[in-house]
Amino acid sequence: MLETAELGQKIAKEEYEGQVLDLRFELLKAQNELRSTPVPVILVVAGDDRPGCNEVLNRLHEWLDARYLHVHAPDVETDEERARPYFWRIWRVLPPRGEIGIYLGGRYAGLFDRVLARRRKKNKKKSADADHVFDLETEMRFERMLVDDGAILLKFFLHLPRRAYRKRLEKSAKGGRKGVLLSREDREQYESFHEARRAVSELLRRTSRGFAPWHVIESTDPRYRDITIARTLLEELRRTLQEPESPEEPTPVEAPAAEKRASVLDSVDLSATIDRDAYKTDLAKEQARMHRLSRRARRKGIPAVIVFQGWDAAGKGGAIRRLIAPMDARNYRLHSIGAPSEEERAYHYLWRFWRRIPARGRMAIFDRSWYGRVLVERVEGFARPEEWMRAYGEINDFEEQLHRFGVRVVKFWIHIDKDEQLSRFQERQQTPHKQHKITAEDWRNREKWDAYRLAVDEMISRTSSDFAPWTVVAGNDKRLARLQVLRSVNEALK
Amino acid sequence: MLETAELGQKIAKEEYEGQVLDLRFELLKAQNELRSTPVPVILVVAGDDRPGCNEVLNRLHEWLDARYLHVHAPDVETDEERARPYFWRIWRVLPPRGEIGIYLGGRYAGLFDRVLARRRKKNKKKSADADHVFDLETEMRFERMLVDDGAILLKFFLHLPRRAYRKRLEKSAKGGRKGVLLSREDREQYESFHEARRAVSELLRRTSRGFAPWHVIESTDPRYRDITIARTLLEELRRTLQEPESPEEPTPVEAPAAEKRASVLDSVDLSATIDRDAYKTDLAKEQARMHRLSRRARRKGIPAVIVFQGWDAAGKGGAIRRLIAPMDARNYRLHSIGAPSEEERAYHYLWRFWRRIPARGRMAIFDRSWYGRVLVERVEGFARPEEWMRAYGEINDFEEQLHRFGVRVVKFWIHIDKDEQLSRFQERQQTPHKQHKITAEDWRNREKWDAYRLAVDEMISRTSSDFAPWTVVAGNDKRLARLQVLRSVNEALK
Repeated sequence: MLETAELGQKIAKEEYEGQVLDLRFELLKAQNELRSTPVPVILVVAGDDRPGCNEVLNRLHEWLDARYLHVHAPDVETDEERARPYFWRIWRVLPPRGEIGIYLGGRYAGLFDRVLARRRKKNKKKSADADHVFDLETEMRFERMLVDDGAILLKFFLHLPRRAYRKRLEKSAKGGRKGVLLSREDREQYESFHEARRAVSELLRRTSRGFAPWHVIESTDPRYRDITIARTLLEELRRTLQEPESPEEPTPVEAPAAEKRASVLDSVDLSATIDRDAYKTDLAKEQARMHRLSRRARRKGIPAVIVFQGWDAAGKGGAIRRLIAPMDARNYRLHSIGAPSEEERAYHYLWRFWRRIPARGRMAIFDRSWYGRVLVERVEGFARPEEWMRAYGEINDFEEQLHRFGVRVVKFWIHIDKDEQLSRFQERQQTPHKQHKITAEDWRNREKWDAYRLAVDEMISRTSSDFAPWTVVAGNDKRLARLQVLRSVNEALK
Repeated sequence: MLETAELGQKIAKEEYEGQVLDLRFELLKAQNELRSTPVPVILVVAGDDRPGCNEVLNRLHEWLDARYLHVHAPDVETDEERARPYFWRIWRVLPPRGEIGIYLGGRYAGLFDRVLARRRKKNKKKSADADHVFDLETEMRFERMLVDDGAILLKFFLHLPRRAYRKRLEKSAKGGRKGVLLSREDREQYESFHEARRAVSELLRRTSRGFAPWHVIESTDPRYRDITIARTLLEELRRTLQEPESPEEPTPVEAPAAEKRASVLDSVDLSATIDRDAYKTDLAKEQARMHRLSRRARRKGIPAVIVFQGWDAAGKGGAIRRLIAPMDARNYRLHSIGAPSEEERAYHYLWRFWRRIPARGRMAIFDRSWYGRVLVERVEGFARPEEWMRAYGEINDFEEQLHRFGVRVVKFWIHIDKDEQLSRFQERQQTPHKQHKITAEDWRNREKWDAYRLAVDEMISRTSSDFAPWTVVAGNDKRLARLQVLRSVNEALK
């Protein structure tokens, strides 16, 4: 892939000056229009020409409106990053919709470094991300997910052919302005790059996909390089700005079967009960166990994510309170998920959950979660069919990324039947401090019981995995439900 | 202060049950009303009764709407925190307006620990924040600033009298539910607390101020404790909700003198120029120096904050570009400050700058900054007089906190005269790619030149400190201005 960037491409000074003002004007206009779209723009600038990458970055700072531009250069990994799954650090720096993020090297920085380092036998020190398996398919699914969500993903690889590199070295040796930026690091990079050329080439090929190909750009002539990058960005922006609102072909969705399908929920035995005394004894026992296990998890650095979903009034809140009661407040964080804020809406729907992923040894408890995408958003039509259909795979990927890092993922669906819900609704309406818990919306949801039931069924069957199985909790007896929740979390932590 | 919390205060079970449902109902109502106010609520829960603090936290989770509740328990300090000034970690967990943040121990946790540790001679290991001087006056000014900004700040100290403590120990030895939570840590804390009692008492007294007193609450009886805390919170919420929009007495503001006052800006010599060749030579020299110094700063872990303010069209952008050109993109971050986002408006105006404070070895460049508070917000009336008057002191405190941590703070006012501005405005209007830089607002601002001039003058005189002096840059000759900026930053990094 690098050959096309070794043709000595150049733009003469006069030609450049004839183009550049127009180009900047158009770029600014497009960037301004971008702001009212739901499209985030992600530019990866990588390559064997490190000073060149730097110059491109400075150029884009100059040509674009810096207020809506976010620049991230790979830096020392912090312990907050190390304490969380690999993708956490990617999510935390994604640009919001309508704005542009530029990533120097991006996730590829570490990868290219590793490819290079492998060649440089002398380089013994592990690169910062040596612990993360850069799994190409996981990476490509991640990029695909961003693009599916409407993002523009542009990946530029700046290539300096060997001849041009030698010239630059000579010039640098003589001093002069360009020479300023040539450090030992750069020299080494050139050297090792030309040795590792084939490996890098292959990597570029393998990470070039239709939805996000690499643009390999010759970096010999800064004018050619900058103009080409700016033009590519401009074209991409224009293409997106001209598209109608919903650019995708609607994916055909399987119609909900009219007949009442057998459901995993049918098999839940809701009739069992436990008496008050037995409950008290068992609760104390499980809470004591929880107390010990949560301390041990903290000590051993095991993170956990506990997800609560369930029918309205199924008793999520009560179960959560019994779960956290024996825990040290330093070890858990409870996240009650309501409608997304304006800021959260400016990102992919998983963004607001990723930012709440706990560090090693900590537990995050989600009272409702990312499953809203395939439940309320599906049933209420907040998400289009192709969006929530896609979500099953995205969620599986997400949870697998957690699992790979060692996060224990426990998911509860707390199940009650329709009659039980009705009697709880009625009780809530008659109890002053519970009235806030019951709204017109709950009654409306209740009317859509069957549609929700279908969505729950599909959710459970499509997102039950070895690494993050669903636990369906019989909720008609609140006490039994609370015990089951405690027991399951205890089992997962064990 | 602890004596009042040793009276054996109790609430009988029947009395509790008669009150609690009403109280919960009222609390939820008040919390809901709070959401449409600009008031953040900060609850500090500290004390010698650590399990009690935990229980209070769980109780508040139960009684309040957890969606608008943020809980923070002091934890291991991360390296992202260690790499920044002490207050960064406080700002990063403040609650937004309309919501409630609960802080277990809060900033006092470390302090109380230290007081206790001092007594426990055997305890040799430094507490996490031993490096931070807990400077009482700085702390109190910080709390004052939050309250001035409209926050409710409630500090609870849970005290368990010695007798009750002994009883609990006995009970714990026998086992039982309560016993679960009594760890060795807790035992030690009790022991050392009763030895350090006088020191803690004094600390409580010294950090009790009219705007944020400590509420010392006896923790013997959980019912009494929980009801008292909830009532105090409820009363405070109600008091605030009943207040008219602007609760403060307007501070009398000194009227701008009618006569033209002598200004620090008058003394700037705007006539000097430099020819193109000399500029090129000097620029290359200063940029090469910048290149070296910024690498060294990175290596030595010296952070820097560079602030650019100036008249519209004064040339901030051009100066910034020359400054960053020789730098490695990993070492700096450029922040162009526009109108605050919805999220940013939900916090104190300094919040959005604190979150951009660089880590050790990094540089943050602000194209406009927190000085907007005393410039545009003052002149346009976006901030009330008492607000921007207060801001000078708040900004000085802010910059002093940066300085104490070793941050180099460099502030530029780029000055041009009114004629020069006019000709630059006209040039911008005639150049397509510059047209976006000139808006009706710029012309409106220009009409308010004298009001801005007064504001700039006052800003420079009130916020020039040894640790963060202003540099007024003569900007009529852009080249000279760029050189001066580079030289000043080089000097500061040296």
